[in-house]
Amino acid sequence: MKGIEAKEDKVIGIIGGMGPEATVDLFLKIIQNTEATTDQEHLRLLIDSNGKIPDRIEAIFNNGENPGPVMAEMARNLEKGGADLLAIACNTAHYFYSFVEKAVNIPVLHMPKLAVEQICNLYPETKKIGLLATTAAVKIGLYQNIIAGYGCEVIIPATDEQQARVQNSIYQIKAGLKAEPERTVKEVAENLILAGADVILTGCTEISMVLKEGSLSVPVIDPTIVLAKEIIALGKAK
Amino acid sequence: MKGIEAKEDKVIGIIGGMGPEATVDLFLKIIQNTEATTDQEHLRLLIDSNGKIPDRIEAIFNNGENPGPVMAEMARNLEKGGADLLAIACNTAHYFYSFVEKAVNIPVLHMPKLAVEQICNLYPETKKIGLLATTAAVKIGLYQNIIAGYGCEVIIPATDEQQARVQNSIYQIKAGLKAEPERTVKEVAENLILAGADVILTGCTEISMVLKEGSLSVPVIDPTIVLAKEIIALGKAK
Repeated sequence: MKGIEAKEDKVIGIIGGMGPEATVDLFLKIIQNTEATTDQEHLRLLIDSNGKIPDRIEAIFNNGENPGPVMAEMARNLEKGGADLLAIACNTAHYFYSFVEKAVNIPVLHMPKLAVEQICNLYPETKKIGLLATTAAVKIGLYQNIIAGYGCEVIIPATDEQQARVQNSIYQIKAGLKAEPERTVKEVAENLILAGADVILTGCTEISMVLKEGSLSVPVIDPTIVLAKEIIALGKAK
Repeated sequence: MKGIEAKEDKVIGIIGGMGPEATVDLFLKIIQNTEATTDQEHLRLLIDSNGKIPDRIEAIFNNGENPGPVMAEMARNLEKGGADLLAIACNTAHYFYSFVEKAVNIPVLHMPKLAVEQICNLYPETKKIGLLATTAAVKIGLYQNIIAGYGCEVIIPATDEQQARVQNSIYQIKAGLKAEPERTVKEVAENLILAGADVILTGCTEISMVLKEGSLSVPVIDPTIVLAKEIIALGKAK
């Protein structure tokens, strides 16, 4: 990450479309967390909501087309368009983070790292973090590797069947369903708490759309809110 | 980029940030009206949510900085970034439509024209259209000129004080309020119906966020929904 000098508001580039609803979610959270009463006080966002990015999960597990080069091209396009800082509006897509980072000369925020950092700052007593994420993110250890670096333990759904229910809920949310995946995700989260989780990390934007702070008996950390706040902190002129 | 998976689906450029919530509103309406169960079925949207565009109302009435050149520059940037088709996510900003249209070689949709066309198609018996819009849009006759071209009559709030209440509600919605402006806007709309309006046109994105189809005893036409559907109709490969 290159240093950011803040004098005037930065232009924020967002690599999105994975899915488009997750991009709307980040967009809204940036607006809602900005102290503004006029349009002019809001950060300028350049959003590329590109649903055509090859499926990340297909790429990781089934030798599908690599989305990395497409994300890199989007990043270059955003930089050329005037972005000073980039963010990726999808947890799992951070598997391809290095393609994006190498493609540009501007900083690229790393949502999963920011989220784990946040847990350690807000809840320093945390020992076990319950993780709800895509099966792909869980299998590649996206969050586990970061969490391990902070000396914490990760609790994931106990069986493949439980994890498959989480993944299925994500697809249902992408397809516009709400009540059923909400019930499923909450049930799996409660099992993670029974297994000792001190905090639940909703490590997939679709999950944070149905499971929020206050839904459970332990804190729920939504990486998208953490990312939105970091974008504002770095983007707004000091 | 266009080569990738996009095939025949068009890339849609959106000139936004006036305000940012109005841009989210269009973004969401495009997603919700797209028949899709996977990310890849969604259109690629390049969104420039630029709150820094000079205030449109200041420009029209108080000799403030002209937002036209900024919007033109955003349009060129979106075209350069790969957009095949442009839309402007704000009614009042269509006062500066010609700056945008002249700046690019791709089509630029005209939301107010599309909305009036829609009313004439769906409700051909319409004689009087009740208009709720910014004071600027009302004073410059943005919708009135278009509606006149279709042989209909426009009913606007009866007094300057009534129109000022609409404008004030718009500012309140931009500042995050909901219940109070919703009440005000509904009251003014009911007065338009009493004065003979067959249809209410919510000619300002903020107003369509609080007044929806079903809120009143006559149809409510939201130009943003009309625009979203047109974007999908033109954007999705046949």
